[in-house]
Amino acid sequence: MNTPLRLGIAGLGTVGRGVVTMVQTRADLLATRTGRRIEITAVSARSRHKDRGIDLSAYDWEDDPVALAHRDDVDVVVELIGGSDGPAKALAEAAFANGKDIVTANKAMIAINGQTLAEQAEAAGRVLRFEAAVAGGIPIVKALTEGLAGNKINRVMGVMNGTCNYILTRMEDAKLPYDTVFDEAHQLGYLEADPTLDVGGIDAGHKLAILASIAFGTKPNFEDMILEGIEHITFEDIRRASDMGYRVKLLGVAQMSGRGLEQRMTPCLVPKGSPLGRLENATNMVVVEAEEAGQITLRGAGAGEGPTASAVMSDIIDIARGLRLSTFGQPATTLQEAPAALAPIPAQYYLRLELLDKPGALARIASALGEAGISIDRMRQYGHADATAPVLIVTHKATRDALDHALEAFKQTGVLAGEAVAIRIEQV
Amino acid sequence: MNTPLRLGIAGLGTVGRGVVTMVQTRADLLATRTGRRIEITAVSARSRHKDRGIDLSAYDWEDDPVALAHRDDVDVVVELIGGSDGPAKALAEAAFANGKDIVTANKAMIAINGQTLAEQAEAAGRVLRFEAAVAGGIPIVKALTEGLAGNKINRVMGVMNGTCNYILTRMEDAKLPYDTVFDEAHQLGYLEADPTLDVGGIDAGHKLAILASIAFGTKPNFEDMILEGIEHITFEDIRRASDMGYRVKLLGVAQMSGRGLEQRMTPCLVPKGSPLGRLENATNMVVVEAEEAGQITLRGAGAGEGPTASAVMSDIIDIARGLRLSTFGQPATTLQEAPAALAPIPAQYYLRLELLDKPGALARIASALGEAGISIDRMRQYGHADATAPVLIVTHKATRDALDHALEAFKQTGVLAGEAVAIRIEQV
Repeated sequence: MNTPLRLGIAGLGTVGRGVVTMVQTRADLLATRTGRRIEITAVSARSRHKDRGIDLSAYDWEDDPVALAHRDDVDVVVELIGGSDGPAKALAEAAFANGKDIVTANKAMIAINGQTLAEQAEAAGRVLRFEAAVAGGIPIVKALTEGLAGNKINRVMGVMNGTCNYILTRMEDAKLPYDTVFDEAHQLGYLEADPTLDVGGIDAGHKLAILASIAFGTKPNFEDMILEGIEHITFEDIRRASDMGYRVKLLGVAQMSGRGLEQRMTPCLVPKGSPLGRLENATNMVVVEAEEAGQITLRGAGAGEGPTASAVMSDIIDIARGLRLSTFGQPATTLQEAPAALAPIPAQYYLRLELLDKPGALARIASALGEAGISIDRMRQYGHADATAPVLIVTHKATRDALDHALEAFKQTGVLAGEAVAIRIEQV
Repeated sequence: MNTPLRLGIAGLGTVGRGVVTMVQTRADLLATRTGRRIEITAVSARSRHKDRGIDLSAYDWEDDPVALAHRDDVDVVVELIGGSDGPAKALAEAAFANGKDIVTANKAMIAINGQTLAEQAEAAGRVLRFEAAVAGGIPIVKALTEGLAGNKINRVMGVMNGTCNYILTRMEDAKLPYDTVFDEAHQLGYLEADPTLDVGGIDAGHKLAILASIAFGTKPNFEDMILEGIEHITFEDIRRASDMGYRVKLLGVAQMSGRGLEQRMTPCLVPKGSPLGRLENATNMVVVEAEEAGQITLRGAGAGEGPTASAVMSDIIDIARGLRLSTFGQPATTLQEAPAALAPIPAQYYLRLELLDKPGALARIASALGEAGISIDRMRQYGHADATAPVLIVTHKATRDALDHALEAFKQTGVLAGEAVAIRIEQV
């Protein structure tokens, strides 16, 4: 048996508790699989005396997480504090400077400061690992960085925020409005302290930026991502989209082409019968379209104590086994700048409009589309008791520019009640 | 840039062609991701002058594959010959003896001789890698050996023979008998030279034995696997199972319990709406039930030139990057003997019988079940124009022993036309 691998753990929330529990309950299995004991030397969190339901008595306590990076009896610092900057980043930098590896679950930090930190880590000969930052228990970072490393990657897609998927599927199943389900999710503890991180698509966007970096060998570029949350999705959208054979998902898509790197985290429609369309509740799914391997889909729990701890442990196990790899699968200094695509690749769009009950109303809308160069794939007007008629249109492929022109022209027709809703249809 | 990694490739069938093509077309990408050039030094196959549609002119030729293991200019031998013994095994042994690593797609060799070869490799300080042996392009070996390595694994399931899944879904979609679809599959080139390897469940069984070894830290034990092919599945079974909400799959299940290691590769019924139930055509799916990570599902192409080559390349890339791991995720000498479970864990069963149209016929069947201690969950008798009536029964959970008793008792009732069909229902 080799020397033990000694951990310093910063952050004892849900994930930290899970990691401590795994180190304790899986000690023998971890020793068998890695050839070393995996031990915790010291821990740090905001409140020392909070009851977390785990036994921390054998570990030293540090009030300042950065102190973990300065301890001679710590080999790996496990950063579970969160936040793109602040103490998390300070801790990572101190760790590399002091010859320690970092394992983190911090998606914001990797998406925003991953390039800087990766360069620091690699210059210091240390590793920066973050399997837990993307899609919880699903080993997608490893699949992309290692399992599919020989492939040219064409597209990466994913539903990677369980809370949003819970809200959307719950709205559909229970026929409830967004606000009601949002409140439910809040009460169930599904939402981050700042719910915009979830429902605004930011959390999922961080994850997508990380996967895009690995897939395309580019510096993480969260800044240029097209980001749109689910706050404006109504039950009506969900129901009508379903009529047309689609489900609404907060879908991340990253795609490299001659146009540059396209990264979107937005509500999209996907066919009901597709694996992504069938994804229920808080489950996550990542779809990788690889040139040689074809379409590879991974599905599992995207959050929670056990799943996230499992991912953190897999990084710790790699380090214990001596499996050391560049942060994003190739040296950080070789990652390319990712020029953002000027506009998304053309797609079909789903449009939902409320038309005033006037003669020629539909004709004006159809003309506006035609003038914008957009042709109609399918159209449906519903019977109605009141003064407006719901109309659904599925267009043929159109540029976002053309669509925006059409949406602007709709407003000039004088036959539209309220705003037209437009949702991209993603071929999956 | 480090020294190149030099490959000797034995076997130039579909997979070999795919690997050569990837080394050629992805040269720069591989160099960026591994920090080394990956080069082919020499190749070997049965027929030197066959046109394979790839340019081999830059590589030395060896008539005897074992010669690759003796070359000083080869670091890794890629074994794509196949077969559990014979030249493949001789090549692997020679490679380890001569300080080379082995990357293979050979499921039979790993399932049957994996323990011996792993011990040889590890004693020699070499690695034996086989991502391509299980489920083609799906990086399941890596997911289980590394990505989920911190977890206690409870159950591994999978549809891992694309040909069988193609046959079963095609029978259902086209309402065709087994023999017709088998002939189709043959003409499409979907079947192994010895089709029993596919439709008899042997090929998929090899894969399951490999996954079980990794999941449970046990020596591969293909010998004790319960194995049953799809040759006896009729369209009638598929249609009637569908009536009851199920689909027929050739499903592998490996499960460790106090009863020992249960490994089955048999036709099973799974709920139509489950991810496994929805799996179409030649696609593969592996489901891992992990204590901490929960249920993780991986889906993708299980065979074919690109997907299998992608898996071979991922092993080569690991070696190029210096990521070296025990064969089954822990030293081969620490793998436990896997005592085979005496009997499968009790399950619900689906029974299909043809009853003679006699008064009291159904009562006799029901009595026989009752006497065997098996209770009925659901039963359906169909209207009929001829002398026998189709009857479907879904039982409550029963042991295989009790079921066999009941099936024996059915024969004594005198009301049965033909044999009763019994298929296990797997909770997925």
